[in-house]
Amino acid sequence: MIFATDDPEVLWVHSKDQATALNGKKKVAINQKGYYTNHISSLLFQYLNSQDVATHFLSLESDTDVLVKRLKMMPLEVVVRNFASGHFVSRFAVPNMLKLNPPVQEFYYKSDELDDPMINDSQIIALKIADEQQIKVLKTKALKINESLKALFEQIKIDLVDIKFEFGITKTGELVLGDELSPDNMRLVDQETGKSLDKDVFRKETGNLLDGYAVVLDRLQQKIGE
Amino acid sequence: MIFATDDPEVLWVHSKDQATALNGKKKVAINQKGYYTNHISSLLFQYLNSQDVATHFLSLESDTDVLVKRLKMMPLEVVVRNFASGHFVSRFAVPNMLKLNPPVQEFYYKSDELDDPMINDSQIIALKIADEQQIKVLKTKALKINESLKALFEQIKIDLVDIKFEFGITKTGELVLGDELSPDNMRLVDQETGKSLDKDVFRKETGNLLDGYAVVLDRLQQKIGE
Repeated sequence: MIFATDDPEVLWVHSKDQATALNGKKKVAINQKGYYTNHISSLLFQYLNSQDVATHFLSLESDTDVLVKRLKMMPLEVVVRNFASGHFVSRFAVPNMLKLNPPVQEFYYKSDELDDPMINDSQIIALKIADEQQIKVLKTKALKINESLKALFEQIKIDLVDIKFEFGITKTGELVLGDELSPDNMRLVDQETGKSLDKDVFRKETGNLLDGYAVVLDRLQQKIGE
Repeated sequence: MIFATDDPEVLWVHSKDQATALNGKKKVAINQKGYYTNHISSLLFQYLNSQDVATHFLSLESDTDVLVKRLKMMPLEVVVRNFASGHFVSRFAVPNMLKLNPPVQEFYYKSDELDDPMINDSQIIALKIADEQQIKVLKTKALKINESLKALFEQIKIDLVDIKFEFGITKTGELVLGDELSPDNMRLVDQETGKSLDKDVFRKETGNLLDGYAVVLDRLQQKIGE
């Protein structure tokens, strides 16, 4: 949930105790989920800020709340895949967890009504969603952030399988990373156990969602926590 | 139907009296269809050859048969859209016949099993279907051929709405246009009557398919026929 603050350029974001999937069609209350997604996301955004990646993140305000810069969001999901999983596997009939090197980059047009269709550069330009230069910047930034996070997760023995980014434009015209960065938006696999540590556990109902989120938060806190 | 000839680098292609749609799930015999598709395709390939576009076309052998160069086909459909129609309209909820300028270019991965999914550059590279340089050549050639055919159809008062190309590689490594070029592979609209002159008439069962094909062949013969 997003709230205005006294500063028109700053928003208050509250992480809810709720899990959703299938474009919001599946929705369940999960106690403490907001705690985990908020802390994981804050740690990752702080890490990226420290690596000179421009993001919307300003400050952690409570266990479930942060302050972020107001962005004019682009209606695109920018996906980067290091291993084949999910839609990519069913769409192209490739083996699950096939290593993709270089990583695959995809755009999806954010529209619940249209079910977020995949969209290519030429279609993005024709629909005036972004111009050629912005597309180039989005790709470069997404691939760079993916490399940075992949290397971070590698250090805590987790494979970053794929990740979804959303970008927006600040008041001053800068294109920066927005949205959240949690296991709701990326696939993570424990290198030792091979277990999913992300929302796939909820999508596929294979266990307790927050067990994985707790592992991720614990390892991130040990590695980059204050 | 494709047959070998005495020359291993030359194939004999026979156009059947058959219409198919929905990836071959809808199939109907239509008397004389082979005559029209074969003559239209031959005229368009001869025209492109005369414009220094490299194609597989060698010669018209009969009303329903041609000789072409053997190609190693790439498993990609290269689509160019000058106006929104068909999938593009439903996928992105844009008005039918919306003008797309510059034209939209799309790739589809040829696989009946997977229902020919749309595929982006990054996915094509990851699946080793083509490399970056080949993708660039495919796009450039497809857009150039589209411009050439659009201008030709404009002269005979027909809008080229969209068109599907398939390319392949010759024995000597050249990437050239293959497949056929008929109203089975492109959408054509009569500028005066607004009527479909292509396979949409069959897909949507709105009339006699060959009436439109006959208009196209007649005008092409007047313009560029021998």
